[in-house]
Amino acid sequence: MRGEVAVIGVGMTKFSEHWDKQLRDLFVEAALEAIENAQIDLKDIKAMFIGNMGSGLWIEQEHLGPLLADYLGIPGTPSLKIELACASSGMAFRLGVISVAAGLYDIVLVGGVEKMSDVTPSESIHHLASVADREWEAFYGVTLPALFALIAKRHMKQYGTTREQLARVAVKNHRHGSYNPKAQFQRPISIEDVLNSPLVADPLRVLDCSPISDGAAVVIIARSDIARKFTDTPIYVLGSGVATDTIALHDRDDITTLKSVVLAAREAYKMAKVEPKDINVAEVHDCFTIAEILAYEDLGFAKKGEGGKLIDEGVTELGGKVPVNTSGGLKARGHPVGATGVAQIVEVVLQLRNEAGKRQVPGAEIGLTQNMGGSGASCVIHVFGRSR
Amino acid sequence: MRGEVAVIGVGMTKFSEHWDKQLRDLFVEAALEAIENAQIDLKDIKAMFIGNMGSGLWIEQEHLGPLLADYLGIPGTPSLKIELACASSGMAFRLGVISVAAGLYDIVLVGGVEKMSDVTPSESIHHLASVADREWEAFYGVTLPALFALIAKRHMKQYGTTREQLARVAVKNHRHGSYNPKAQFQRPISIEDVLNSPLVADPLRVLDCSPISDGAAVVIIARSDIARKFTDTPIYVLGSGVATDTIALHDRDDITTLKSVVLAAREAYKMAKVEPKDINVAEVHDCFTIAEILAYEDLGFAKKGEGGKLIDEGVTELGGKVPVNTSGGLKARGHPVGATGVAQIVEVVLQLRNEAGKRQVPGAEIGLTQNMGGSGASCVIHVFGRSR
Repeated sequence: MRGEVAVIGVGMTKFSEHWDKQLRDLFVEAALEAIENAQIDLKDIKAMFIGNMGSGLWIEQEHLGPLLADYLGIPGTPSLKIELACASSGMAFRLGVISVAAGLYDIVLVGGVEKMSDVTPSESIHHLASVADREWEAFYGVTLPALFALIAKRHMKQYGTTREQLARVAVKNHRHGSYNPKAQFQRPISIEDVLNSPLVADPLRVLDCSPISDGAAVVIIARSDIARKFTDTPIYVLGSGVATDTIALHDRDDITTLKSVVLAAREAYKMAKVEPKDINVAEVHDCFTIAEILAYEDLGFAKKGEGGKLIDEGVTELGGKVPVNTSGGLKARGHPVGATGVAQIVEVVLQLRNEAGKRQVPGAEIGLTQNMGGSGASCVIHVFGRSR
Repeated sequence: MRGEVAVIGVGMTKFSEHWDKQLRDLFVEAALEAIENAQIDLKDIKAMFIGNMGSGLWIEQEHLGPLLADYLGIPGTPSLKIELACASSGMAFRLGVISVAAGLYDIVLVGGVEKMSDVTPSESIHHLASVADREWEAFYGVTLPALFALIAKRHMKQYGTTREQLARVAVKNHRHGSYNPKAQFQRPISIEDVLNSPLVADPLRVLDCSPISDGAAVVIIARSDIARKFTDTPIYVLGSGVATDTIALHDRDDITTLKSVVLAAREAYKMAKVEPKDINVAEVHDCFTIAEILAYEDLGFAKKGEGGKLIDEGVTELGGKVPVNTSGGLKARGHPVGATGVAQIVEVVLQLRNEAGKRQVPGAEIGLTQNMGGSGASCVIHVFGRSR
């Protein structure tokens, strides 16, 4: 599968609270931008793979596949929804890539979309808890911030990770987001801002948490051997990996390691024939600040327990050796759950095309996306390259 | 892809109201039966594709992929949920087949599951309407029975299809269901029973409608070249087709033809290199009796408008030329939405293996499954054979 499929077009809405738009509107806006970017016609799209976590819960709408093909103007086209919690559209991308690599389709649309702001925040938090074990976690009142707070506490105790290191992740991602016109938050924040923000679940504070967002992101993928018909800078899919873990945190041997990330990364690196040190730019799943620290370690950017040190040393900032979350990440770009996986891919593609504007990583050749579900019960990782 | 993948094991729960079991229990029960049937070990399963329509709506549980891999005892294994309304697990099967055919995995589990009875019937009807256009259909009070009632009325007017012909579909499927120990309803009914049952949406009555059900169905698929290691009767996937249509009924040129069925059938027949006349046994999506009449026509078993005649002539009964819904169909076997597509496949596999007991179609060589979403906005069709 390595290098057989390329991304030829990208598009996304601004991530925000879109009070005046429906889920279908957001999707169509992002899709039309991607189609124009790929310089294809609507009729070139032979199938659609849509990542979405909770359209049933948030807007009581299922059957998104045909709905969105219809609203895009191509009813008839095969189209379905993939649900893998917060990793839904990363998984949709993987399935799109597999179906192109299998020779089934030449050109495929992969999208991610979520509309979360039409209900109250407490309803949203209840809906989000459906990605944890409803019977054995959520039912007893544990929400996603609480689960990641448990992980953070344990990581701090076990490895000496500090409260300030967590804050530094948010500060970095807000700075990066300030360069991204499509980010939900485009204002820099300070470490003091994070430390003084309201407590959510000790040790995590409001500014450690990704927001509730509306938005859509879409990419167009094609067989690599026809990609140059459409673009001078196809970005090749070099590796893909996916894995799961126990749904409940309490069933894991060690909550400071996300096994799904380790396993998915192993598969993706192996397929791509690269090592962690070869990655020039990465988008990782910073749903909470601690999650980015774990990602550093479980992706092999740092040794286990030394993720905090990496952020202290500035390695993952713009200007550092491996800039992480140049888009602003989930923290500042926003986190419309089902759209996040593809939004990460949009960012890495822009970086590898040298089109990332003020947040460009000079000379980036190889990029990685890490998209995670729930408290790490699933993870999807992709590696991309400027060349095959 | 033709013939490259085979079904090597099948399992399913009884379809029923399972007050004492959760969704996860139903899935594990069906999965263990399929694993034993395939004579594989748990560790042989390299990925899981789960079809489910509404776990978010009915039991507020998403992230089914890892949840079910975990409960089956294989956390770590790639696993995700596919949503395509009532065609969810038909689509899950297609993606499983593609991933095996692409060389990604040797052995894959494909499951379908739904738990619908934990809420009131009116809540279920509300949830089911999420597969129609929530904004332009359901919001105005149209439910699924009403949409199919519109189709039935129009078909009766345009082609002279009679009320009795619709009833005959239910009578046939209840008779078939009486031979199936896993069917929700195992009692024969008469035409009078149907005609005297309470009106739901004119002309459809209670006994024209599939029930609300709980249940799970699972199949194990493998690369064809290793299939005989596990079973003497691998059943080969000869063809696969999928298509969509407008989400809303009012946007279609002609509501008596389900374009998604026509398109999906064309793709599946072409890949399988068969014609409608070659099919020996079929499971079709009789969510309402009129839907089975439409299926006859749109699959090419009858000319457009002559579906009613086909049921009158007994062609699709056990003993007829093409027995349809030998399992009892959605009407009598039951319709746990996300489980239906795989349950259809289980039945066709049993038929082609000559293991269908009292309902066996003698000498069946080629079978077909037609799994549809909503009022036909999506359709997934597969063709199976005893030989490649």
